[in-house]
Amino acid sequence: MRIERARPYVVKALHAALNPRSIAVVGASRNPNKVGYQVCKELMDWHFKGEIIPVNPRATEILGLKAYPTLRDIPHPVDLVFVAVPAHLVKSIIEDAVAAKATCAVVATSNFKETGRADLQDEITSYCREHKLPLIGPNLVGLGSPYDSFNCGFIPYLPIPGHVGMISQSGANLLAALGTSQKDHYGMSFFVGLGNKADVDFAEFIEYADEDPHTGCIGIYAEGIDSPEAFEASAKKVHKPIVAIKVGRSKIGVKAAFAHTASENADPDKFFDDLFARAGVIRATTWQEFLDMTLALGMMPPAKGENIVMITNGGGAGLLACDHFERIGYPLKELKDISPELREKIRAYMPSFGSPLNPVDISGTADVVSYEGAFMQAMTDSHTDGVLGAICPTAVTDVPGVAQAAVRVVEATKGLNKPFVMICQGGQECQDAIMYLRDHDIPAYPTAEQAVNAMVALRRYGEIAKSKK
Amino acid sequence: MRIERARPYVVKALHAALNPRSIAVVGASRNPNKVGYQVCKELMDWHFKGEIIPVNPRATEILGLKAYPTLRDIPHPVDLVFVAVPAHLVKSIIEDAVAAKATCAVVATSNFKETGRADLQDEITSYCREHKLPLIGPNLVGLGSPYDSFNCGFIPYLPIPGHVGMISQSGANLLAALGTSQKDHYGMSFFVGLGNKADVDFAEFIEYADEDPHTGCIGIYAEGIDSPEAFEASAKKVHKPIVAIKVGRSKIGVKAAFAHTASENADPDKFFDDLFARAGVIRATTWQEFLDMTLALGMMPPAKGENIVMITNGGGAGLLACDHFERIGYPLKELKDISPELREKIRAYMPSFGSPLNPVDISGTADVVSYEGAFMQAMTDSHTDGVLGAICPTAVTDVPGVAQAAVRVVEATKGLNKPFVMICQGGQECQDAIMYLRDHDIPAYPTAEQAVNAMVALRRYGEIAKSKK
Repeated sequence: MRIERARPYVVKALHAALNPRSIAVVGASRNPNKVGYQVCKELMDWHFKGEIIPVNPRATEILGLKAYPTLRDIPHPVDLVFVAVPAHLVKSIIEDAVAAKATCAVVATSNFKETGRADLQDEITSYCREHKLPLIGPNLVGLGSPYDSFNCGFIPYLPIPGHVGMISQSGANLLAALGTSQKDHYGMSFFVGLGNKADVDFAEFIEYADEDPHTGCIGIYAEGIDSPEAFEASAKKVHKPIVAIKVGRSKIGVKAAFAHTASENADPDKFFDDLFARAGVIRATTWQEFLDMTLALGMMPPAKGENIVMITNGGGAGLLACDHFERIGYPLKELKDISPELREKIRAYMPSFGSPLNPVDISGTADVVSYEGAFMQAMTDSHTDGVLGAICPTAVTDVPGVAQAAVRVVEATKGLNKPFVMICQGGQECQDAIMYLRDHDIPAYPTAEQAVNAMVALRRYGEIAKSKK
Repeated sequence: MRIERARPYVVKALHAALNPRSIAVVGASRNPNKVGYQVCKELMDWHFKGEIIPVNPRATEILGLKAYPTLRDIPHPVDLVFVAVPAHLVKSIIEDAVAAKATCAVVATSNFKETGRADLQDEITSYCREHKLPLIGPNLVGLGSPYDSFNCGFIPYLPIPGHVGMISQSGANLLAALGTSQKDHYGMSFFVGLGNKADVDFAEFIEYADEDPHTGCIGIYAEGIDSPEAFEASAKKVHKPIVAIKVGRSKIGVKAAFAHTASENADPDKFFDDLFARAGVIRATTWQEFLDMTLALGMMPPAKGENIVMITNGGGAGLLACDHFERIGYPLKELKDISPELREKIRAYMPSFGSPLNPVDISGTADVVSYEGAFMQAMTDSHTDGVLGAICPTAVTDVPGVAQAAVRVVEATKGLNKPFVMICQGGQECQDAIMYLRDHDIPAYPTAEQAVNAMVALRRYGEIAKSKK
């Protein structure tokens, strides 16, 4: 349901919802086939640090935890009420939550607006708003945060700790991102599936993320934006980068989005391009771009100017990269036009047949010393605004050694506030290097184009941050 | 050096070069730091099935192998002469190779046209052409085939056996593809780095690949095409799909390409778009697209029409896919416009709240039976031209079970000659499913957009194959 602006009481409640000290699970069950049982069990299995309170009128104990017949019977107010009961029972549970002074309600139950029951959904939403009980959902997959070992819902993964606050309207795509987190070391600060977003909306999560100390970048997957004014106002207000992927561009997608999360896209797609541009939100086109850009923006400061230098041991990767920079509207400049001094200094780190253009090709024979020297020169040169390094493993390349050198250079140049991004294109040792680099907060990617997308996102956010000042 | 048309004697010789019974390594050494030693050792370590013959004027035995002072001293003609000696010695080795009636010469040595020594390169090329000794290279990283455990050059990977014949002008990017092969189960039939392609050119490798029984798709990474007429004539002639990625679009890329492999790109990029369109070559934009498209075209028959049906358990993946289909000019049609019968039949495999649009959303609760039934109905319906399946792992999804069902369906419907492509978006179990599917010749991908690029490549090749008839 539409909001005009992010509501402060909601933003405040989200701190409790995403860092809860206590969670009441309504619909908890002793039957392992019931979702209420599974939600409690998952909370325990992931070692949630707060209190778990099963609510079930016909049980006194579930999974070894004391159970209460209703929310009203719990002796203290809870931070989060997780609701997994059939749709027709949700209203009365919400009434209990209000009576019990719960801070926030999360409704997993489906069968609301997305299946034609907008009336029921709106009735519950109005009640929540009247009583200032923020409601997340319904038709939602879950939410959590790796920092509290908090994973509440139907989610088989807990992400690794990191910097991306992930706000997703699709459960399936949230699960995809969470799976990617473990597998590809894509760290998150928190995650939430919005489902039908009957009450709490993007704007409020954006403002919460801005206040959350773990979040460095806000990632948004949207199928529909019901409250564009609130979205725009909150996005403009915050001081962290926002990347959004908005689906439902296609004609057939509009129909599918409605069936999925009851999103109405009466506006053509250009509306969203304009909205994001005004709001200072970077729009990702593909899912991979979305992951790649958010990772980089969560780890690195923005690029303050256009002087990006690429250092590679493989001409092929350099060519893929410089083509892609130009294709997406951010062509590389020649090194002589960025810094003639750097051009001379960097020659010391390449053989005579190396190429001091940009990309700087330090050649397939480059060792760790050459890489480290070239990286350091490029990072510390006062004319550069960011460095893109690339490893293409030849028979003599020390892939882990170069990755370690990159970590040293980034560590030593932290005070310069310049972004550094890596490409490691190759086999398992490159995948291992990517994981190692990401674990050290360096955005690293298996293809040149992914790294370029990341670097350009860092540049675009540099422009956005400047315009916000 | 320019050719007018692919030369039959070269194409014939490539059969020997890529399936050699004997390899003479000139510049072989007993010093483990010398490249000639490493090339011999790698051949042995990968268990090359043919004969390895070191050539060194100052050794009678290297790595336990009998060595000969010169090529002329070897008692029988060899299939492949691998040359890894300094540039100024190459000419005399080539003369020896001609005298010894070698079938093909491969020159790894650099310092020719790419560093301004075009004269020397052209002199050697003219000599080779005069004596009908095909020369691959110079400035080349290596070549090989997993089917013969044949890995000759400076390449730390042997790809897994598969269907893509990989012809790369960049050594670094060839290495990236080879690393990907092991890590991501991207199978190849053969691989070759062309380096400066002084003599043997793309056209001849294309015609060889067409004759090679293991090759299902021809993948080309190009920085420059010196003989476009020959390229076009050969590409038009063959009956296997060709995917090319041509770099050096950008202004800065033109300079870098010359420094890298001495490629001259006087023509603007549109020249290549037109060339590829006329030649029936699918042009990939990014490296990932290149890998994804070639994988699919090597495994699956083309789509004969535009009636692609997508089956997913996650609405989010469906939306990403249908947006991407439309974005790249191949919008999905609604299921009712493809086959009203299929629309009715497929309802049996989804809950009441599932969505029989296209994408068909069989819902997050879908089990293996639902997936298998829906896949089978979609594949066997006489109105469909291809099926895109998607797994988004919810807490109840049996990811390996669905992958096995996909293999059964593809096996059972082989005779229909319809492509089937999978998306498995999520964590490690999805990565495992992707590997399992690829091992069973089903192209599978971690993101919706990659799978869509693959399916659209199968459709585009369907159009190309039709126009070639």
